[in-house]
Amino acid sequence: MSSRPVKVGLLGLGVVGGGTWKVLTRNAEEIARRAGRSIEVAAVAVRDVEKARRLVGGDVFVTRDGLEVVRRPDIDIVVELIGGDTLARELVMEALNQGKHVVTANKALLAKHGNEIFAAAHAKGLMVLFEAAVAGGIPIIKAMREGLTANRIQWLAGIINGTTNFILSEMRLRGLSFAEALADAQRLGYAEADPTFDVEGVDAAHKLTLLASLAFGIPVQFDKAYIEGISHLAGEDMGHAKRLGYRIKLLGITRRREDGIELRVHPTLVPVERVLASVEGAMNAVQVYGDAVGGTLYYGQGAGELPTASAVVADLVDVARLQAADPEHQVPYLAFQPDAMVDTPILPMSEVVSSYYLRLRVEDRPGVLADLAHILADCSISIGSMFQEPHGADDADIIFLSHQAREGDVDQAIQKIQTLPFVKSEVTRLRVESLL
Amino acid sequence: MSSRPVKVGLLGLGVVGGGTWKVLTRNAEEIARRAGRSIEVAAVAVRDVEKARRLVGGDVFVTRDGLEVVRRPDIDIVVELIGGDTLARELVMEALNQGKHVVTANKALLAKHGNEIFAAAHAKGLMVLFEAAVAGGIPIIKAMREGLTANRIQWLAGIINGTTNFILSEMRLRGLSFAEALADAQRLGYAEADPTFDVEGVDAAHKLTLLASLAFGIPVQFDKAYIEGISHLAGEDMGHAKRLGYRIKLLGITRRREDGIELRVHPTLVPVERVLASVEGAMNAVQVYGDAVGGTLYYGQGAGELPTASAVVADLVDVARLQAADPEHQVPYLAFQPDAMVDTPILPMSEVVSSYYLRLRVEDRPGVLADLAHILADCSISIGSMFQEPHGADDADIIFLSHQAREGDVDQAIQKIQTLPFVKSEVTRLRVESLL
Repeated sequence: MSSRPVKVGLLGLGVVGGGTWKVLTRNAEEIARRAGRSIEVAAVAVRDVEKARRLVGGDVFVTRDGLEVVRRPDIDIVVELIGGDTLARELVMEALNQGKHVVTANKALLAKHGNEIFAAAHAKGLMVLFEAAVAGGIPIIKAMREGLTANRIQWLAGIINGTTNFILSEMRLRGLSFAEALADAQRLGYAEADPTFDVEGVDAAHKLTLLASLAFGIPVQFDKAYIEGISHLAGEDMGHAKRLGYRIKLLGITRRREDGIELRVHPTLVPVERVLASVEGAMNAVQVYGDAVGGTLYYGQGAGELPTASAVVADLVDVARLQAADPEHQVPYLAFQPDAMVDTPILPMSEVVSSYYLRLRVEDRPGVLADLAHILADCSISIGSMFQEPHGADDADIIFLSHQAREGDVDQAIQKIQTLPFVKSEVTRLRVESLL
Repeated sequence: MSSRPVKVGLLGLGVVGGGTWKVLTRNAEEIARRAGRSIEVAAVAVRDVEKARRLVGGDVFVTRDGLEVVRRPDIDIVVELIGGDTLARELVMEALNQGKHVVTANKALLAKHGNEIFAAAHAKGLMVLFEAAVAGGIPIIKAMREGLTANRIQWLAGIINGTTNFILSEMRLRGLSFAEALADAQRLGYAEADPTFDVEGVDAAHKLTLLASLAFGIPVQFDKAYIEGISHLAGEDMGHAKRLGYRIKLLGITRRREDGIELRVHPTLVPVERVLASVEGAMNAVQVYGDAVGGTLYYGQGAGELPTASAVVADLVDVARLQAADPEHQVPYLAFQPDAMVDTPILPMSEVVSSYYLRLRVEDRPGVLADLAHILADCSISIGSMFQEPHGADDADIIFLSHQAREGDVDQAIQKIQTLPFVKSEVTRLRVESLL
């Protein structure tokens, strides 16, 4: 415990940055007992210098210029918490160039530019840790990178966006529409003023991209992810799903098959008795299935000031413990050694195999069901269950639950159904996963 | 990936040893891609040399004598999977003496002799890893030691013995008595012929002892743990618990208080809506509450050939990745640096504060309830709910659920109640925890 302190440069002092300061300060003694040395914030880059100074006091260097922090010789680790992928990218690359280890919570940055960043870090023998980028304080990155290394990972599925999970819980429990539930989430601070990244599944896809790389030893390939959000869900889908024994969750799913890897984010019907089905509100949970360990599950708060700071500080302790290690023997960025990544292809969405929930409105007249059944059969889609509900005097809603089918076949069936004269709505298509 | 292979000496080739061989063999390529080098079993010590040779082939050194394996110069890591704490202790100490890193699944050994073993390892700069000792393949040790290092851990509670959890599930779901459910468990291989260690809570206490050290930075102190098993539970307790909105689980609980640390294993009433309440059969789950991260939960198979091997092999990968690190910068054995352990006392059970379930049989006559209530009030125990059920013509069963009370006060109340002339049974006392 006599080693010199580890000096941290903090880029950003917002929610997560402030939380990181708070945790490092209030748990300083316990953290030092674990890390073997103390961890001190020596420099901070922020927009509001005066406000920052009131928080961190006079001993910390405070500046508006991130590059000033990144280039300070006394800094061992740069913590990037400003978000986005332009300035953040520049600062992270310069930090590596300056020989600093990097800790970041920035999933967008890594999902898009991770390959470049990890290559630059590897060339310099530096660590880049990002536990806070996925599922807040739940140590899921560590589980994937270090805890499950014995396994051939088969698949993982997770609720990895708290905003959408909160909205879906509100829709289900309080019978709200998507718009009403979103407004609630915004009022309570669970959704941003521009909620697009969350509700359209982009944030979850950033995180899933990282998890897939950790699971399968493939480069990050955000551009190949299939992404579908929850804004098109109708309140009635909740009720129909319940009647069928399911709940609707926005899942990130990645699965290894012989011919490639599925990588997809979409609202998903989950059997009500599964653990993931009962993860409510802003909580996160990830299921990982390995060939040796079987199914495992990790659950906790997926966001927020202190939970996310918990992950940032855990990464700082990792660096403090391991920075003296020969770089060849540090834990690899994406679980697999940089020279041992594989190029298993990400499958196009049309190749995904799943069960499907289909809902459409039709004129309620003879022959309708026969025509629909005919199209589905023609497209090799077999129906597991089906029910029909009257809508007004002349119409009906029909809900199908299919057995396993190829997404491409379902696309084709939907296209054909959409041309039928008695079909009065777009076909709503949701995927179904049985999970653990 | 050009480094030389890591050579492993395996002590024991039973269920977990065989699983370790299997996982290392079938996932060899993927493990090497993660570890940066291949991991090879070079020597095995077993009772049945012929049988072992059939499994591992001719290239592996096979012997009956563990010391021969431990002393081989080509071995980097000794994996101890023979169990028990006499021969295992001797072999582990000699392995450290010979400068070998150690991986073990042996909770009994570490719970009783961990302090000595870790001190010997520390003196030599060696790693001792034991992920497989608690909760099978769930990476809970790694979460505690590395994932949650930012936190002041407040408490943890876990279902960490699959045998007892299976028996309790059978008692509840199928209405069996303890003896019937135990017989089932034995028939299905979930319980050993002599089930004492499992059903009396000793195995869970071994594991809890390790988790408490990891959580709070205290030496292992198995002898201070309070241990109560499930063999005294009556089938009717399941029904009463259900009526009150609870399920009965054997929990290991450790909690930090200002005056010390609670360390206890006992059957516990858990509110039915909690995640831990729905962990059934041979599954394990651990909840950890940290001041920054809040509540987190880890769930999976707690035992078995491959899940346990998953943990053993993950430890081997950790050693392969980190063995070149300066010992001062390896991850500490018990989460906290060896020179930073504290001597916070383990509290005696009488100081534990909990809610209580009390069940007793009485003669059904006037004044009984008044006398009981009087004693409870005298001992500062306040009742939350209570019900009475007739038993035969003349007797009744009374069930109390108390508010928070000191265990010592409850002891005193039970002692007094036991002397009342109308009380016809021992008082069954179970503890209640609200958890997350």
